[in-house]
Amino acid sequence: MILAKPSNPRFAEEIRSSFAKQGIMRLIGAELDRVEPGMVEIRLPYRADLTQQHGYLHAGIVTTIADSACGYAAFSLMPADSDVLSVEFKINLLRPAQGQNFLARAEVVKSGKTLTVVQADVFAVSDQGNRLIATMQGTIICLKKSAPVNQV
Amino acid sequence: MILAKPSNPRFAEEIRSSFAKQGIMRLIGAELDRVEPGMVEIRLPYRADLTQQHGYLHAGIVTTIADSACGYAAFSLMPADSDVLSVEFKINLLRPAQGQNFLARAEVVKSGKTLTVVQADVFAVSDQGNRLIATMQGTIICLKKSAPVNQV
Amino acid sequence: MILAKPSNPRFAEEIRSSFAKQGIMRLIGAELDRVEPGMVEIRLPYRADLTQQHGYLHAGIVTTIADSACGYAAFSLMPADSDVLSVEFKINLLRPAQGQNFLARAEVVKSGKTLTVVQADVFAVSDQGNRLIATMQGTIICLKKSAPVNQV
Amino acid sequence: MILAKPSNPRFAEEIRSSFAKQGIMRLIGAELDRVEPGMVEIRLPYRADLTQQHGYLHAGIVTTIADSACGYAAFSLMPADSDVLSVEFKINLLRPAQGQNFLARAEVVKSGKTLTVVQADVFAVSDQGNRLIATMQGTIICLKKSAPVNQV
Repeated sequence: MILAKPSNPRFAEEIRSSFAKQGIMRLIGAELDRVEPGMVEIRLPYRADLTQQHGYLHAGIVTTIADSACGYAAFSLMPADSDVLSVEFKINLLRPAQGQNFLARAEVVKSGKTLTVVQADVFAVSDQGNRLIATMQGTIICLKKSAPVNQV
Repeated sequence: MILAKPSNPRFAEEIRSSFAKQGIMRLIGAELDRVEPGMVEIRLPYRADLTQQHGYLHAGIVTTIADSACGYAAFSLMPADSDVLSVEFKINLLRPAQGQNFLARAEVVKSGKTLTVVQADVFAVSDQGNRLIATMQGTIICLKKSAPVNQV
Repeated sequence: MILAKPSNPRFAEEIRSSFAKQGIMRLIGAELDRVEPGMVEIRLPYRADLTQQHGYLHAGIVTTIADSACGYAAFSLMPADSDVLSVEFKINLLRPAQGQNFLARAEVVKSGKTLTVVQADVFAVSDQGNRLIATMQGTIICLKKSAPVNQV
Repeated sequence: MILAKPSNPRFAEEIRSSFAKQGIMRLIGAELDRVEPGMVEIRLPYRADLTQQHGYLHAGIVTTIADSACGYAAFSLMPADSDVLSVEFKINLLRPAQGQNFLARAEVVKSGKTLTVVQADVFAVSDQGNRLIATMQGTIICLKKSAPVNQV
């Protein structure tokens, strides 16, 4: 994880405000947990309506919390008046997504003027500790809030 | 796209039955559309509760329908008594996921005894035609239904 | 494949001139083949000193020709005075890289002002036709030639 | 990094022997450095004939050493009589590959019976320390030495 000073002093409240606008997070019941410079955690309790055919959390939902965590981790190090968009990501599903709670933790690997590279681990959380179930590597682009998003 | 004979004659009904067990598909309102040997389409109408902070479909939901389409496209060419699990995938988000309807179309690139490689395109569908908004490349593993999934 | 007009009329000769500067292409014996708007092919004859432990072409060399083909395919649609850099790519190795000749064909999926998404297929070429051995999906960034590369 | 006991006591000498058979490693001048359970390092001195058009190490060569390091890191935890094949990988190129020496360090994230997931970092090494220039996430398959590789 990089050690970086955030250049936008209001990054944490802006992340919390943006997260609150993500309709999908309410729908699935995800909550924003830790928000630090270069690191963001999102927590998701298991629900039967988030599953694939075996009753495990669907890979797409594992991805949903990992991707939002990545975007906000990247955002935490960007200047004020920035907007983020996921360019791409890759995720390996390591173990069946079984558990009562899931935690996606994203950390910035390299923060650039235009592109930020982020890694995220997703854990199934239980009394026995955290079991790693997926790992993501992705690329986030920084846009000026004024610029139209289809100018990428 | 490969031209392949399905070895499981009941592949289409097994895919439809498996899809019906994916709680997440009901939650987001996705529907299984075409199911052919080596090719599967999933359709998703836009809803405000599936979005990220700008009101576009969340990248994780784009991924959710693309991943299920990939898994079932792979399954369509597997022998009877098979089960599928996503090993990993990578997705590029090409344009803002804006539209009334979205269509994920997955096609098998290479079907192997253990691993199947699949590509999926996700389109925003409108009267003006299909606009490509994302493209995925992933790897699916074939498991015997009897084998425990954590033996991968 | 996109149908696009190149905005730099000298794209083909600039690609050939850039390719000639890639020391690695000479070392491995790769040749630039077709250069068209949005599409580039690179050809590589098999050599025993390009192999991994089983005598197949090393995945890194399969990647080397695919990556250069992707970069130049992206470049072909960029304005004059552009420079390209690979942001990231993902490749699936589909079959053993056996053969007398290999061909990497890259095609632009989406060309943007800053980022271009490209897919490449790598084939083992023989009298029996082209056998697909690998498929890549990657992201290329367009830089102004005047801008320093570490400003990304 | 996982803490794992190697099940093949001869893993290190088998890795060194396999590395010696990789023609490409001799061609580019790469050397096998540390070999430990779940972790392998490969070192590569800069040479002008390994470069792309700007004189930096070509992304495909960065990938070549990272991929071999990943394969051997995975192999180090496999049972005797195993063979490895790269299924797929994704790499982000973080900074220009400039330097006198490069070091690829791969570590196993999850070792399974069939599939192993590995991450690798590639550094430019200098007197000022190690600068991270690329990061890879990939999937390796374990084959029995007796099985034909195209049975994957």
